[in-house]
Formats: sequence, C-alpha cells, structure tokens
Amino acid sequence: MNPDNIRIVLVNTTHPGNIGAVARAMKNMGLARLYLVEPRVFPHEEADWRAASAQDVLAHAVVCATLDDAIGDCQFVVGTSARERRIPWPLLDARQCAQRAARASVNEQVALVFGREDRGLTNDELKCCNLHLNIPSDPAYSSLNLAMAVQVVTYELRMLAVAGSLPVEQDEQWDAPFATRDNMERFYTHLEETLVDIEFLDPAAPRQLMARLRRLYSRVRLDEMELNILRGILTETQKWVKKARKTEG
Amino acid sequence: MNPDNIRIVLVNTTHPGNIGAVARAMKNMGLARLYLVEPRVFPHEEADWRAASAQDVLAHAVVCATLDDAIGDCQFVVGTSARERRIPWPLLDARQCAQRAARASVNEQVALVFGREDRGLTNDELKCCNLHLNIPSDPAYSSLNLAMAVQVVTYELRMLAVAGSLPVEQDEQWDAPFATRDNMERFYTHLEETLVDIEFLDPAAPRQLMARLRRLYSRVRLDEMELNILRGILTETQKWVKKARKTEG
Repeated sequence: MNPDNIRIVLVNTTHPGNIGAVARAMKNMGLARLYLVEPRVFPHEEADWRAASAQDVLAHAVVCATLDDAIGDCQFVVGTSARERRIPWPLLDARQCAQRAARASVNEQVALVFGREDRGLTNDELKCCNLHLNIPSDPAYSSLNLAMAVQVVTYELRMLAVAGSLPVEQDEQWDAPFATRDNMERFYTHLEETLVDIEFLDPAAPRQLMARLRRLYSRVRLDEMELNILRGILTETQKWVKKARKTEG
Repeated sequence: MNPDNIRIVLVNTTHPGNIGAVARAMKNMGLARLYLVEPRVFPHEEADWRAASAQDVLAHAVVCATLDDAIGDCQFVVGTSARERRIPWPLLDARQCAQRAARASVNEQVALVFGREDRGLTNDELKCCNLHLNIPSDPAYSSLNLAMAVQVVTYELRMLAVAGSLPVEQDEQWDAPFATRDNMERFYTHLEETLVDIEFLDPAAPRQLMARLRRLYSRVRLDEMELNILRGILTETQKWVKKARKTEG
C-alpha cells in the first residue's frame, strides 16, 4: 500500500467544518492528499478549527472545478453510495473497498470520492467510478455525516497499513515475564496450604474450591511479578495465623 | 449481540458539538444508549445541530455525576486509551474490542468509555476498565476527534451485526454471571483493607501494589462465585489478624 497514491475527493461540500474534519480524519490515518470539487466556501475559519493539527492537509488541498479534473489521472476510482441504485453496480463495504484501494495504490493513482452532505453523488458521477462503496448502517437512520464516512474508510486503510504490527498479541509487550508452569504449581500448593491454615478450606471436604481458583488464575496468565505479590500475601497471612495460634495455645 | 445492552459513556466532554456528533454516529450504527459524565455544557443547541436526526438519542441521554454512576451496573467495561501506560494493560484495537463487546452484550451490560477531548481518560478511570482500546492511527498525528473515535468503534459493532454470526467464545457458556463494576469495587476495597491489616501494604508507601492487583483481576473478569470465594478468604484472613492482635495485646 502506498498512501501517497491515494487521494480523498469531496464533491460540492456545503459545510466548511466538514472539510476540516475530513482533513483531520485523513491525517490521523496517515493520508495527506485532499481534492475539493467546487466547495461552497473554502478556505474558511470553521474548516481550520475542525482540522485541528491537520491544517497542512487543508493548505495543500487541490480545489477543482469539476470531478473530471480531480480524478482524470486516476486508474482506480471508488464512489460512495448511500442508496440502492436503479442499475446495480458492484457494491463493496468499506473493508472490501479498502483492500481493493490499498492493492491498487501500489502501482496506480487511487481516488475515493465522497458526495454532497444531503444528496451524495449523482448518478452521472457514480458512473465515473470503478466501484461503489456503501458503509453499513442502521436502516432507521442510514445517513452518515460526510467526515464520519471518510473516517471509516480511511480507518480501514489504516488497519491494512498496520496489519502485522498491531498489538494483536497484547502479551508481547507485557512488562514482566509470564509465570512458568512450575512456579504456578508452587503457587497453587502455597495457596492451598494457606487456605487450610486459615480454615477456609477443609481438607476433608475440599469440594471444588481449588479447581475454581485454578481456573481463575490460569485464565489470567499471571506474570512473575504478580505471582510474587500473591505469594507474599500468602506468606504474611500464614505468619498471622501462626502468631494467633501461638499466643492462643 | 444485543445493542440494547451496550452504552456509550462520554467523560467530561468539553464541546457540545461532539456530544451531538456522537449521538448521530451511534444512531447511524444502531445504538441508542448515551451516558454523559459531567459534560461541560448539556443540553446545547450545537449538540442538537450536530446530532441531526439523532436528537432522540440526546433526549434520552443519562447525565451522571461520576463515572461510577455511569458504569456501576456493567459487567464489561472498555476504556479508550491513546497513550502507552506505565503498567501495560490488555490493549485491543477497535475490531477486537467490538468482538468482545458484542459477545458480552448477549448477557451482560457493556460500557464503552471515551475520555476528554484533550486528555482522554485518567489512569484512575482506566483502572476501572476490563480492557483498553486503542484505535490505530498515524504516530505523526494520533489524536482522533472524540466523535470520530466513537464512530470507528460503533462501525465495527455494526459490521459484526450485519455479519450475522459471531464466533462463539468461552464467556457465553460461563457457569456463573460475571461481576458488576460495583461488586468489583467492593472487592478492591476489601482487598486493600485486608492487605493493610496483614501489614503487606503500607498505606504510607503503597507503591503500585493495588494498581497491579487491579490489573490482574480486571484482566481475568471475575465471576460472582469467584468473587465470593476471594471475599471469603479475605474475611477469614481478617479474623486471624484480629485474633492474633487480641491475644497479643
């Protein structure tokens, strides 16, 4: 995937705030090339404000008179489409679309085109696209805000960009090594001993107590530091029991 | 997945426009339950405007004084986290998080918690969460707009809803209900009290002890039966300390 080959194209945007929010969404997800086809007002302070730290994206935005000007040099064009069209068109969701766009971006210029806030893209504009994109939404209220739609699509691109380097395996960055089986067994022995000491566990009628505690602590995968804390607590507890018994007897 | 069991919780939101945009993002994706913990201003016309046709979500929003009030009855709590923490916590991306939340929502109350626009959630707030969520972004500009973050997470939930079938996980067939936040807090209070009693925890120099134990037990998601066992152990331990001290003095 080459993000430098991917552009976001906004057609006839009405609210400058949305343009700013799109710029921020793009930069958050590692994209920088914004094309504006006949925006109603641009530049505008509301766009700057909503862009927050992405004003460089706005500063480099290319303002075009027509959609053709914005996508003329592109080999792969995706148009967002809210409604069912009379003539069916290949319709992908944002995830599928991101995959296709990411692949194409390696060698080609890619455009992701978003329409007007109230009416989306016209049928003529959609006919210029290789694919149509639809973001799944609740039929009860299916109209996403423009910048939100851009956010979802660029997020899917980002997910592809980081695939492989994601914290999928949370355990990898853990701050202490996980406990070995041997140390876990020592802990369970110590735990059982202590529970007998404090008379919470009756060795004559142990029921399922140790089984439940084993399930609990194996589920969590204790690290060595946590194991030390728990064993420290057991040791202290045993001292108090000894002290109580000694003074008692 | 049961969207009625999933709530979005916003903590200390500054801009009412963001609250409105969140309401719209939620409704677009089929969610309706919004909780606001100490919003700076609400209701507000800017919230209404940005909510567009999701003003019913705003009208039913629950305003709370504390985070505890908003999540006390929840069994599964996810907090959004931008930064690396001193003590690593299980960190999932939005997709993994949506899978876990969707599964939990079948039988449990689920909260997805989002922090302040400028500073996110505090460490104390993050400690109340079972999981931390991080949305992949470009390190060059990683701070997503609040409503955008909600959009991405709710979009991932929607993708699962339209996919139809979730992969089954162990949690669904668990033999006891998972503990609520309120009961977990009572457990932590009892645990801390007991550790002070046995002189394992020095209130004058607590270090990271409780933080580490909280991480351990939120990671595991205790069920109510396990919670009862652990609290039983604490109660017995405290009796022995009392006995030792009485005979001593």
